[in-house]
Amino acid sequence: MSKVINVLAERYASPAMKSIWSPEGRIVLEREFWIAVMKAQRDLGLDVPSEAIAAYESVKGSVNLPSIAAREEVTKHDVKARIEEFNDLTATVGPKHEHIHKGLTSRDLTESVEQLQVLRALELVRLKAVACLKRLADAANDERDTVLAARTHNVAAQATTVGKRWAMFGEEFLLGLTRVERHIDDYAARGLKGAVGTQLDQLTLFGGDAGKVSDLEDRVIVHLGIKRGMNAVGQVYPRTLDFDTVSALVTLASGPSSFAKTLRIMAGHELASEGFLPGQTGSSAMPHKMNSRSCERLNGFHVILRGYLSMAADLAGDQWNEGDVSCSVVRRVMLPDAFYAIDGLLETFLTILNNMKVYRPVVEREAAHYMPFLLTTTVMMEAVKAGVGRETAHSLIKKHAVATSDDLRAGRISKNDLFERLERDGGLKLPKAKFDEILAVGSKEIGAAGKQVDVFVRTGDLWLAKYPEAAAIKPGRML
Amino acid sequence: MSKVINVLAERYASPAMKSIWSPEGRIVLEREFWIAVMKAQRDLGLDVPSEAIAAYESVKGSVNLPSIAAREEVTKHDVKARIEEFNDLTATVGPKHEHIHKGLTSRDLTESVEQLQVLRALELVRLKAVACLKRLADAANDERDTVLAARTHNVAAQATTVGKRWAMFGEEFLLGLTRVERHIDDYAARGLKGAVGTQLDQLTLFGGDAGKVSDLEDRVIVHLGIKRGMNAVGQVYPRTLDFDTVSALVTLASGPSSFAKTLRIMAGHELASEGFLPGQTGSSAMPHKMNSRSCERLNGFHVILRGYLSMAADLAGDQWNEGDVSCSVVRRVMLPDAFYAIDGLLETFLTILNNMKVYRPVVEREAAHYMPFLLTTTVMMEAVKAGVGRETAHSLIKKHAVATSDDLRAGRISKNDLFERLERDGGLKLPKAKFDEILAVGSKEIGAAGKQVDVFVRTGDLWLAKYPEAAAIKPGRML
Amino acid sequence: MSKVINVLAERYASPAMKSIWSPEGRIVLEREFWIAVMKAQRDLGLDVPSEAIAAYESVKGSVNLPSIAAREEVTKHDVKARIEEFNDLTATVGPKHEHIHKGLTSRDLTESVEQLQVLRALELVRLKAVACLKRLADAANDERDTVLAARTHNVAAQATTVGKRWAMFGEEFLLGLTRVERHIDDYAARGLKGAVGTQLDQLTLFGGDAGKVSDLEDRVIVHLGIKRGMNAVGQVYPRTLDFDTVSALVTLASGPSSFAKTLRIMAGHELASEGFLPGQTGSSAMPHKMNSRSCERLNGFHVILRGYLSMAADLAGDQWNEGDVSCSVVRRVMLPDAFYAIDGLLETFLTILNNMKVYRPVVEREAAHYMPFLLTTTVMMEAVKAGVGRETAHSLIKKHAVATSDDLRAGRISKNDLFERLERDGGLKLPKAKFDEILAVGSKEIGAAGKQVDVFVRTGDLWLAKYPEAAAIKPGRML
Amino acid sequence: MSKVINVLAERYASPAMKSIWSPEGRIVLEREFWIAVMKAQRDLGLDVPSEAIAAYESVKGSVNLPSIAAREEVTKHDVKARIEEFNDLTATVGPKHEHIHKGLTSRDLTESVEQLQVLRALELVRLKAVACLKRLADAANDERDTVLAARTHNVAAQATTVGKRWAMFGEEFLLGLTRVERHIDDYAARGLKGAVGTQLDQLTLFGGDAGKVSDLEDRVIVHLGIKRGMNAVGQVYPRTLDFDTVSALVTLASGPSSFAKTLRIMAGHELASEGFLPGQTGSSAMPHKMNSRSCERLNGFHVILRGYLSMAADLAGDQWNEGDVSCSVVRRVMLPDAFYAIDGLLETFLTILNNMKVYRPVVEREAAHYMPFLLTTTVMMEAVKAGVGRETAHSLIKKHAVATSDDLRAGRISKNDLFERLERDGGLKLPKAKFDEILAVGSKEIGAAGKQVDVFVRTGDLWLAKYPEAAAIKPGRML
Repeated sequence: MSKVINVLAERYASPAMKSIWSPEGRIVLEREFWIAVMKAQRDLGLDVPSEAIAAYESVKGSVNLPSIAAREEVTKHDVKARIEEFNDLTATVGPKHEHIHKGLTSRDLTESVEQLQVLRALELVRLKAVACLKRLADAANDERDTVLAARTHNVAAQATTVGKRWAMFGEEFLLGLTRVERHIDDYAARGLKGAVGTQLDQLTLFGGDAGKVSDLEDRVIVHLGIKRGMNAVGQVYPRTLDFDTVSALVTLASGPSSFAKTLRIMAGHELASEGFLPGQTGSSAMPHKMNSRSCERLNGFHVILRGYLSMAADLAGDQWNEGDVSCSVVRRVMLPDAFYAIDGLLETFLTILNNMKVYRPVVEREAAHYMPFLLTTTVMMEAVKAGVGRETAHSLIKKHAVATSDDLRAGRISKNDLFERLERDGGLKLPKAKFDEILAVGSKEIGAAGKQVDVFVRTGDLWLAKYPEAAAIKPGRML
Repeated sequence: MSKVINVLAERYASPAMKSIWSPEGRIVLEREFWIAVMKAQRDLGLDVPSEAIAAYESVKGSVNLPSIAAREEVTKHDVKARIEEFNDLTATVGPKHEHIHKGLTSRDLTESVEQLQVLRALELVRLKAVACLKRLADAANDERDTVLAARTHNVAAQATTVGKRWAMFGEEFLLGLTRVERHIDDYAARGLKGAVGTQLDQLTLFGGDAGKVSDLEDRVIVHLGIKRGMNAVGQVYPRTLDFDTVSALVTLASGPSSFAKTLRIMAGHELASEGFLPGQTGSSAMPHKMNSRSCERLNGFHVILRGYLSMAADLAGDQWNEGDVSCSVVRRVMLPDAFYAIDGLLETFLTILNNMKVYRPVVEREAAHYMPFLLTTTVMMEAVKAGVGRETAHSLIKKHAVATSDDLRAGRISKNDLFERLERDGGLKLPKAKFDEILAVGSKEIGAAGKQVDVFVRTGDLWLAKYPEAAAIKPGRML
Repeated sequence: MSKVINVLAERYASPAMKSIWSPEGRIVLEREFWIAVMKAQRDLGLDVPSEAIAAYESVKGSVNLPSIAAREEVTKHDVKARIEEFNDLTATVGPKHEHIHKGLTSRDLTESVEQLQVLRALELVRLKAVACLKRLADAANDERDTVLAARTHNVAAQATTVGKRWAMFGEEFLLGLTRVERHIDDYAARGLKGAVGTQLDQLTLFGGDAGKVSDLEDRVIVHLGIKRGMNAVGQVYPRTLDFDTVSALVTLASGPSSFAKTLRIMAGHELASEGFLPGQTGSSAMPHKMNSRSCERLNGFHVILRGYLSMAADLAGDQWNEGDVSCSVVRRVMLPDAFYAIDGLLETFLTILNNMKVYRPVVEREAAHYMPFLLTTTVMMEAVKAGVGRETAHSLIKKHAVATSDDLRAGRISKNDLFERLERDGGLKLPKAKFDEILAVGSKEIGAAGKQVDVFVRTGDLWLAKYPEAAAIKPGRML
Repeated sequence: MSKVINVLAERYASPAMKSIWSPEGRIVLEREFWIAVMKAQRDLGLDVPSEAIAAYESVKGSVNLPSIAAREEVTKHDVKARIEEFNDLTATVGPKHEHIHKGLTSRDLTESVEQLQVLRALELVRLKAVACLKRLADAANDERDTVLAARTHNVAAQATTVGKRWAMFGEEFLLGLTRVERHIDDYAARGLKGAVGTQLDQLTLFGGDAGKVSDLEDRVIVHLGIKRGMNAVGQVYPRTLDFDTVSALVTLASGPSSFAKTLRIMAGHELASEGFLPGQTGSSAMPHKMNSRSCERLNGFHVILRGYLSMAADLAGDQWNEGDVSCSVVRRVMLPDAFYAIDGLLETFLTILNNMKVYRPVVEREAAHYMPFLLTTTVMMEAVKAGVGRETAHSLIKKHAVATSDDLRAGRISKNDLFERLERDGGLKLPKAKFDEILAVGSKEIGAAGKQVDVFVRTGDLWLAKYPEAAAIKPGRML
């Protein structure tokens, strides 16, 4: 029987994300951790020659899984096998060195490497999110002034613009991006705390010199590019930190998810679509179909992330004493899979943003159809200015609007004639010219919509300026 | 980069479960479905020769994934590739046949095959659960009369027996087993309903004969071993059914999870352990460690299942119109992974049940230590019989019990002398002989505990009699 | 400061549901439980006069909360206060009796009463669900033959009928109703098991006669209208049973939730609406608004239920030893609130079903607009019959369908002329008459849709026949 | 029938938290919002006299719910009723004013007030959390040097101290506190955006002057004490923000939850307890019981919070178009109830911290019993120094440790004699003096434990210095 593959990784995630969580990627991070420890030990006066560090650096990318597996068969110890492999690799570029893993326990290694995986993955997510943000801002700018019937409760409300709608989802996306940024900034390393958190082994190594142990730890963390270290932990870092990570991913996923739901609804009205590439087949049975499959998939990823959130939430606050491994199997699944899911989601989002289409003629026809309804707020305000009671005006407009709607639905009329009815009724005390003016102005000037788009575009530019590598991000091929 | 494997499948699940969800397993189920349709079509008079069916039957297990992939490269259609492969395979045992997939749409095939995967997986789960139940009943019987200090709020309460405690978790497990049984009994097939559920294609095939279409569908379902068919569906079967499936798995997992938590607590008191095999290493750093790693893992699987439950719950009740594929990526992950998780959980449970140990001397020492406390209810009842007010008795016992407890904790005494204190106090109007009697009887006769164990053992036997193959189930090797 | 009220109960739930969970309702159930125990004790020969039972029966509905509270101030014991109150009440209809609570512990009472609350609430839910089912079936029947453009991925797919769409959501609803029915049938009582489950107190009462204790328990359960009893429990019944209850409610809620989402989408297209009553105001700011507020609320209840499901799932499988009260605060919130939520959901569903409108002219216009697309499957099959390769036909239809769609969106054409284009192209080898025939037949004969509606209507009738009181259920006034 | 009360609010939450979410509290916040808008309008040159603002300020706390309800009966409009009430109240302190609600829509009011409720509640939570942190730090300091057998997998591992264990849970708690702090800092106001987010009404009020509208909004936000405003929103602020709020609460709850679980386990070993007050009754049936009920309740609140997290997660990413009210019923329940739950949790935590006891003699006996096991790491290191192979030493220690453990459990020995066995064996090449030394040093010097406690204590002081009002926080009475 063939190996069962991880669907999220193999179907949806990018090579960059897979490499962080793959066996190979983990080994590279482990080696980077060992190197960071050696550098710190050298800085503190331990005998670690710089050429040894250079040698380890030069071979850290040579990962040979079968060789490591063969060593493990002999040593019966996974960490030991990987230590020997790395030491022997230095012999391929000069004299062999044996300077790694001094004074470390297994947990010092594994907890740290898992934290590195999380942090590197978060940084990749942030970069990809900035790429999406920029693309969404461009899309908003493209449709900055395309007047659209805004909908609340999924029915026409007032006028807005397509660009403003995109900016609105951008605002939600920014909540998530900021959250991820904060989380990365605050992400603290467990450090070298030993089997139950008392640094027993490190202190033994440094002859009980607590200052040096503390210094060593700080330096290792700096070498790893982490900004803070934890103080008092047990066997493990608090799993609440994992909950914090996954909840940041859910926050980030929410703006795109709202966007995708609305795009699916808009596609149902043929106002816009996620695009349909020339060679694409919507359905093998129904040749005419052009489906919102990417948007649907994006929403699916959001559901998946909430499932991993549930797992993360169940681990947080469930530590017994100095820790145990009831979290182990959960974290093996939840951590990589949550990152594969957010990665797939962002890949999908980027693909949608690159290919989506707005059908302006349909948008215009719909806006025109509903325009008298969209402007009832303004009509009501003008009627009040003209001396009509607010509630009288509301009631009169409602009566005619409902009747107009009924007639349109029944096919008795084909054009929205609400303004003509209101004028004929006379109860609002507004002349035809006023109705014409309301219509003329109201169907073009859409409040602060344009300004909000501009602000959003500038915000996108600021993020891109901070993370310029995001400009080069391209989505992979969608299955 | 190597393929990312599915951790739940490859580390924890059994070959039997993997084979259901593997690409190979899915193809076999697909073929069984096609055969079921052919049989039904033959029964209804369509021209499907019995030797053709026999030929398909004889080759259905020959799965050659590379061959199918090569065909797909040519046809650019996955279902078509698998049709050709199956047809060509018949030529290896006689003349080639081309009788499969008549009048089917893709969804008729894929929905049905996924339902078959779920159902076969449920049946496997049931079988494994019966094996666990039987083993748990045996364990309860082994310790039927081992008196134990029952704990509520994690502190000593009254006396029970170890066997009764196992039976108690068995009762919870039975809730889950019954739930799975009901779910299998009620599991209904979507059937052959076409692209949006109107059976358009089947009706076309049978010249509009709705009776035959209905008959065909019923027969297919019978051939598949499913007891019920659905009536009105859309493109897909309601995803609520998947929620029902996953929630049944969570229910089943809960009894073992409670059991495992309690065994972890008992291990902390050295009353019992999940066992520690001769070659096993508890910790590479701390040679003395004997950890409850399997119990912890079991609890981890329960957390994982609740995560998949969240995914399933988010799909249920989210169907738009006749259906879409926003559920697709979720179901690709959630369905197999939930079954891998429950499979891993049951494997782990069985391993624990096979290896666990009760340390009777420790159990006895603890029971003896707490026995006067465990019997305060009886003392209070006897005092009431002797004419003391209930609240007076309660208050007096509490006072002395708290003092005894304080002295024991402070090391001022080493033996629980509550009864002596109560006797000295005299307030309960009970002679020493009565205290002696209470202690003598109360530390041996544990109410209905034994009877409840017996009932549980009989229940286990009944389930085994219904599913005798469960007797042969053995857990795989634990990593 | 005023008391904070329970929003779910006071804004959305029915009086019947509130009365089950109210302090008053709980006291009535408690008294029913005591009466059931007395009857059983009498049946087993204990001295409980029938006139005493009759006296208790006659006053069980007289609930005076302040009187009970005043007694509790004196006795400092809540159960004792309620015992005295009930005993004293018998003196208002004859001589005073003191026959309740013999041989019971607090947990025997509280666990049993909570189980009764759950069971009575489940029965109320079932009844209300049957009322909804019947009304949905009527609605399906009303629109049995109203042809509708079925949508998958929210875009037009093939033809169906509005009635069939309602029946489809009915099928999902039936999954939930069946699940609730099974759960009620299997619901097992904890019974009279004492403080840690060993029946110590009952055995003491009956002089160690285990047969009588068992008999008593069975009879109590029968009196309460429960079909099964549990065997081995601890202090509490397994909380997995609560998970089973709440998951049944989520299953039941899912069909209505799918229905409500689709109705919200349909309202966006003005195909249907949940209704808009004459006095109703959609928005105080926008007088024309007619919102799907009830459907939205229904979806909100579904979200809420999934939250309580999370709580229930976290309790299941978390029992330590013979039990503790870490579940207590959770169950105080989750159990009543989950039932208030499902009750509010069903009330809302019933209101929607009573008021909703289908706008047939709009449905017809939409179906006509998309009809050539909806029939591409049939065109493709006819082309194959006419000798055109399937893939050739698919590709050709797709090309023209995409072009037609583009022209319609761009406003270059206003009528769907796909069939004319296909005929002009000639590649499908079908004469105009064939296209005309496909259109004429295909826009009227909608496969098995009508038959499925009929089956659904019969199913609704069967449920109503089983629970005829459902016919009288009326929704309360919607806020 | 009496009103159903909100259990979380009435049983567990503090008056301060209830007042934020009560009808009265909401009205006060609404009035504060109106005042903030008036101040901003005055600053921008609109005619709002300062004495009017002063008048509103002076009466904002006079909340008369029945009066407001009576007005609503007349106006049939809730917001209008509250406007009139507030205006009329100014007449009680001088001339009547009518300056509130100018240019606002309902959503501008309700969204803003709900954001204020959330923010004020978050600030209260932060304050209470700082109080808990300080108390936990004191507790850690009290037991800074109390040597304890650290447990991993719930079995003895190495030595730590009780103070270090408390500091460890403090570290987890700090994760949550920091998260809440960040969330408050980043919390952004929706502002005055009108019905669909285009600021149509505000622009009308200011004659189209977008700069003034923007300025007004900024000033209102400043007056409310919020640091940031949102740019582009629809009808509502993105519900993702609510998810962010609730997930911050879950993060905060996790440290206390881990602490409570461990204290329950420790109580089972009689190492510590949450305290048992003189008048307290553990069980009415079992007079000796002293239960960890507050810890259990705390864990229950954590389960509840995760349920509200599920609701919040289901709203995030589910916005359709410019928004709808499918979130309404959910937020009515979830937002206040999540805050009541965290408030109850922190009240409970504070109560535990105030009353808990560490039983040092029991802690010492346990540590002494396990000490040779706790020091096997050191023994192994010394053996390696003495020239024994690491794996040889590991294997030898494991053999003797398992045998010692077996003998202790079986009652064959009563004192842990592992070191004697190892010495007798001789395989480790260590003299008796070395074993004596290891024991003497190892059972006293506990690595960096003390230093970590000191750091934790300083951290607690820093937080208290930042929020000094926390020093005055006292827990309410526990039910």
